[in-house]
Amino acid sequence: MTKLTLILGNKNYSSWSLRPWLLMKQFKLDFDEVIISLYNPESKPKIQQYSPSGKVPVLLHDEITIWDSLAICEYLTEQFPNYHGLPEDKKARAIARSISAEMHSGFPNLRQNMPMNCRAKLPRKVITSEVQQDINRITDIWRYCRGNFGSGGDMLFGKFAIADAMFAPVVLRFITYSVELDSVCKDYANAILALPAMKEWIKAAESEPEIIPSFEL
Amino acid sequence: MTKLTLILGNKNYSSWSLRPWLLMKQFKLDFDEVIISLYNPESKPKIQQYSPSGKVPVLLHDEITIWDSLAICEYLTEQFPNYHGLPEDKKARAIARSISAEMHSGFPNLRQNMPMNCRAKLPRKVITSEVQQDINRITDIWRYCRGNFGSGGDMLFGKFAIADAMFAPVVLRFITYSVELDSVCKDYANAILALPAMKEWIKAAESEPEIIPSFEL
Ligand SMILES: N[C@@H](CCC(=O)N[C@@H](CS)C(=O)NCC(=O)O)C(=O)O
Ligand SMILES: N[C@@H](CCC(=O)N[C@@H](CS)C(=O)NCC(=O)O)C(=O)O
Repeated sequence: MTKLTLILGNKNYSSWSLRPWLLMKQFKLDFDEVIISLYNPESKPKIQQYSPSGKVPVLLHDEITIWDSLAICEYLTEQFPNYHGLPEDKKARAIARSISAEMHSGFPNLRQNMPMNCRAKLPRKVITSEVQQDINRITDIWRYCRGNFGSGGDMLFGKFAIADAMFAPVVLRFITYSVELDSVCKDYANAILALPAMKEWIKAAESEPEIIPSFEL
Repeated sequence: MTKLTLILGNKNYSSWSLRPWLLMKQFKLDFDEVIISLYNPESKPKIQQYSPSGKVPVLLHDEITIWDSLAICEYLTEQFPNYHGLPEDKKARAIARSISAEMHSGFPNLRQNMPMNCRAKLPRKVITSEVQQDINRITDIWRYCRGNFGSGGDMLFGKFAIADAMFAPVVLRFITYSVELDSVCKDYANAILALPAMKEWIKAAESEPEIIPSFEL
């Protein structure tokens, strides 16, 4: 029997951890969780027990270790092809990969200025023009995908897939910092929040006792 | 007949552009190139003609547009399976994806402090401890892959593949800024530099007239 274990950071704060966790839950994969409380003196050695990069998330699959959220998502899609992590249609698939990799490597201003913090409401954060540009690009992507590929459901490519997992942390950031959205983007954000696995994640985040001060400003 | 066109930035400076270009050359794919000179007042509208993200590289494949260097590499591997962009062995493949995605989303200090500049020699740049940490992690990755998966050749996983394309810009940075390497890493860097396609890229970079001042410090 195959065994999957996912090593995560705090659910309240760890945006990168949410991605593979959400994918695995939505795809009803059976896995164990190990949660490591981040950014405290003990966290680094704990993470390094599992992770060659010194970062979470990490997936252990039998004797194989995969780190990095996007690599884990691609790996799972290849290992469990019934779960359709990527659209089948060639064009939709190319776009899904493009926006996922764009998200993975970009948006540094959004990341720095709007850290994920599920349980907080910080509506008075000043949105700089650089952050606004990141927000504009993300909402462009959502409108483009919903408009061109979204007809089979309420996710970016209709049904839930990797691309949605990649953008789910952004949905949480937009709520924490009260980012205004048009109706297409608001509907998409609400559809993400309505996923049973998202509700489960947020509930767990809300009951975590740890506080990371630099993520609370 | 299928048609491939790759939209690139200046060869001297555009690290992200080098990745898919190198992969396509090494895999002997036939493609057209469009080079856009970056970071000048005309570049943004030119890029936006092709690229939804406003960034290069972009690949046009018949009627499909794919942007982002990692997405292009994954796409090509799926479209041209004979070229083996990823190792076949399951474990090697998982590691190849992990390090490629780690490179794609990480190493911000190295990127900012050591911009790619093929033709320059800037050995007096101060290497801060953050940059040194990035260098250490990269050389750890190289040693780990060469030691565990490298037996079939002189690339990270033996034969040239996506992971090498992802790290090739780093090899150029290490030369420009005279980063000291141990013998395993030096051999790997030299093997990358000896690839015919790398030589072709560097030669083209050296003959480009454009200068981007912020990349010359
Ligand atoms: N590219 C990585 C980034 C992972 C990352 O930055 N993780 C953060 C937490 S969200 C981390 O582990 N930080 C702990 C540390 O640096 O000590 C991925 O997508 O998995
Ligand atoms: N994640 C993207 C990043 C691409 C990127 O940042 N490209 C730079 C040049 S190397 C660019 O197009 N800059 C032009 C601009 O921002 O105007 C990828 O891997 O393709």
